[in-house]
Amino acid sequence: MSEPLRLGIAGLGTVGVGVLKILRREAAMLTARTGREITVSAVSARNRGKDRGVSLDGYVWEDDPVALAARDDIDIFVELMGGSDGPAKAATEAALKSGKDVVTANKAMLAVHGQALAELAEGNGRVIRYEAAVAGGIPVVKALTEGLAGNRITRVMGVMNGTCNYILTRMQSSGLPYDEVFQEASDLGYLEADPNLDVGGIDAGHKLALLASIAFGTRVAFDAMELEGIGRVTIDDIKAAADMGFRIKLLGVSQMTGRGLEQRMAPCLVPAASPIGQLEGGTNMVVLEGDAVGQIVLRGAGAGEGPTASAVLGDICDIARNFRLPVFGQPAGTLTDVQPASSTTPAPYYVRLALQDKPGALAKVATVLGEAGVSIHRMRQYDHKGGRAPVLIVTHKTQRSALDLAIAGMAGTGVVEGDPVALRIESV
Amino acid sequence: MSEPLRLGIAGLGTVGVGVLKILRREAAMLTARTGREITVSAVSARNRGKDRGVSLDGYVWEDDPVALAARDDIDIFVELMGGSDGPAKAATEAALKSGKDVVTANKAMLAVHGQALAELAEGNGRVIRYEAAVAGGIPVVKALTEGLAGNRITRVMGVMNGTCNYILTRMQSSGLPYDEVFQEASDLGYLEADPNLDVGGIDAGHKLALLASIAFGTRVAFDAMELEGIGRVTIDDIKAAADMGFRIKLLGVSQMTGRGLEQRMAPCLVPAASPIGQLEGGTNMVVLEGDAVGQIVLRGAGAGEGPTASAVLGDICDIARNFRLPVFGQPAGTLTDVQPASSTTPAPYYVRLALQDKPGALAKVATVLGEAGVSIHRMRQYDHKGGRAPVLIVTHKTQRSALDLAIAGMAGTGVVEGDPVALRIESV
Repeated sequence: MSEPLRLGIAGLGTVGVGVLKILRREAAMLTARTGREITVSAVSARNRGKDRGVSLDGYVWEDDPVALAARDDIDIFVELMGGSDGPAKAATEAALKSGKDVVTANKAMLAVHGQALAELAEGNGRVIRYEAAVAGGIPVVKALTEGLAGNRITRVMGVMNGTCNYILTRMQSSGLPYDEVFQEASDLGYLEADPNLDVGGIDAGHKLALLASIAFGTRVAFDAMELEGIGRVTIDDIKAAADMGFRIKLLGVSQMTGRGLEQRMAPCLVPAASPIGQLEGGTNMVVLEGDAVGQIVLRGAGAGEGPTASAVLGDICDIARNFRLPVFGQPAGTLTDVQPASSTTPAPYYVRLALQDKPGALAKVATVLGEAGVSIHRMRQYDHKGGRAPVLIVTHKTQRSALDLAIAGMAGTGVVEGDPVALRIESV
Repeated sequence: MSEPLRLGIAGLGTVGVGVLKILRREAAMLTARTGREITVSAVSARNRGKDRGVSLDGYVWEDDPVALAARDDIDIFVELMGGSDGPAKAATEAALKSGKDVVTANKAMLAVHGQALAELAEGNGRVIRYEAAVAGGIPVVKALTEGLAGNRITRVMGVMNGTCNYILTRMQSSGLPYDEVFQEASDLGYLEADPNLDVGGIDAGHKLALLASIAFGTRVAFDAMELEGIGRVTIDDIKAAADMGFRIKLLGVSQMTGRGLEQRMAPCLVPAASPIGQLEGGTNMVVLEGDAVGQIVLRGAGAGEGPTASAVLGDICDIARNFRLPVFGQPAGTLTDVQPASSTTPAPYYVRLALQDKPGALAKVATVLGEAGVSIHRMRQYDHKGGRAPVLIVTHKTQRSALDLAIAGMAGTGVVEGDPVALRIESV
């Protein structure tokens, strides 16, 4: 048997404690599966005295995660603190520079600093593994980097923020407005300390950026992503979409086109009967499409102690088995710069607007759409209320730019109140 | 860069040709991802002269796959011939004995000879990879052996024979009887040369046996599986199940219980609205449940040139990256003997029987069920036709043994015609 594999774990929140529990409970199983004993040398967290429900006896305590990362008695630095910068990044860099492999659940750090960290890791002959950073317990990074390594990936899609999916499905089932359901989610502890990371689509966008880099061999380009949160999705949109056989989901889509890389994370409509349309609550779903394999769909819990710890353990076991590969599946130096393509792939759109009660109002809107080259597939006008009638339009496939032109033109008609809402309808 | 990785490929049917095409077309991509050039030294197939639509120039031809497997100029023997014994097994053994790794799509060979082959491989310091043997393009072997390595697996389920799923969903959608749809599938070329491998559940059973071995650390025990094909599923069952909100699927289920390992591959009822219930046509779905990760669902194409070649390439890339692990995820010598447990986990059952038109007939059947301790959840009696009335019963959870007792007792009532059909209702 090989030497024990020694861990240093920084961050003892839900996930860190989950990892420790499995390491203590399943030591024999993990050794049988990897051929090595897996031990913990040292741990670090903000509050030493806190009762975490798991014994820390036998582990050296370090107040400073950077000091932990550089210790001589660890082989893997397990980073479970979070945050794109600050201690997480400093400790990760210290670990790599001192010859440690890194396992992390930190999507923000890798989405922002992934290229630099990958170069640092490879320069030091080390690996960074981050299965837990994307879609919780679903082994999607592994599927993409390894299982589908023989494919040219054509498209990656995913519902990867359980909190947003909870809010949207809860609005659907309860008929409650966004603000109330947001408050519920907050009371239930589902939201990040900065809720905009969730509802602003940033957390899910970070995950999509990582998958896109692996899928297309490009440098992580979170900044180039079209990003829109769910804050503008109203209960009226949810109901109107349902009326027409759709669900609204915060869906990420990335695909390589002739014009460059499309990456968008935005609320969109999907068929209610599709697997993504039926995804309820906090569950995540990732769809991978490759030229050989066709479509692979992966579903599972996207967060929580057990699922995230499972992903961390999978990475630790891989390193114990000496499975080593570049951070994004190919050497960092061979990743290409992204040519960001705004979403120029035509798609049908859902448009909701409030029409004034004036003769010829609908005709004016239809004319503006027609002049922009946007053709109408389905339209519904509902009863007027307080002098305004809600109008729902589903367009035929169109360029987003054409639709934006039409929407801009609606302001000039004098018959449309407020800003129309436009959501892409994705084929999934 | 390391030395090239040299392949010998035996079997140039659909999958073998698919693998060759990808190797030729994507050589640069594969090298970028694995750090090694992947080359083909030699090939073997039954018919040298056949036009396969891909050039064999530059590859040595071997008539004998055993000779191919033992060649000095190959590192991996890629076995795509099929068959549990004969040339596939002989060549695989020759490859391992002469120090080659093996990549295979051969579920039958591993389900029958897996333990001996695993021991041979490990004794020679070699690996056998077989992602393509289970559920086509879905990277489920990888998910189970690697991604979920930190979990105690609690249950594995799967719809893993596309032909059976095609037949069952086609019966559902067309209303045609089994024999006609079987003939359709045969005309479409969907069936194995020996159709019983498909419709007898054997092919799917082989796959389940492999997953169970990995999941539970047990020696492959295909012989200990409860196996039932779809040949007895009538269009009446399909319609009756649909009436009650179910679909009939050839579903494999394996779980470790206090009494031993349950493994069954049999037609059963699942809720129509569940992900497995909605699985149409040739698509495969595998459900993995672990103590930490909860439930992971994987869906994708279970057969065909592209998906199967994708799985073969994934394995080749893993070996190129020097990812090496025991055949069933832990050393063959540590796999435990299976204590086979017949399906003693209680479940609700669907029962269909034909009742004679006699006074008190239904009461007699109900009495027999009650005396066996089987309680009725729902029952429907349909109109009499030709002196017989179809009766459908959904039981509460019961032991299969109690139900079998009741069914045996029905023969003595003198009011039941023919053999009742009983299908388990799985919670999925």
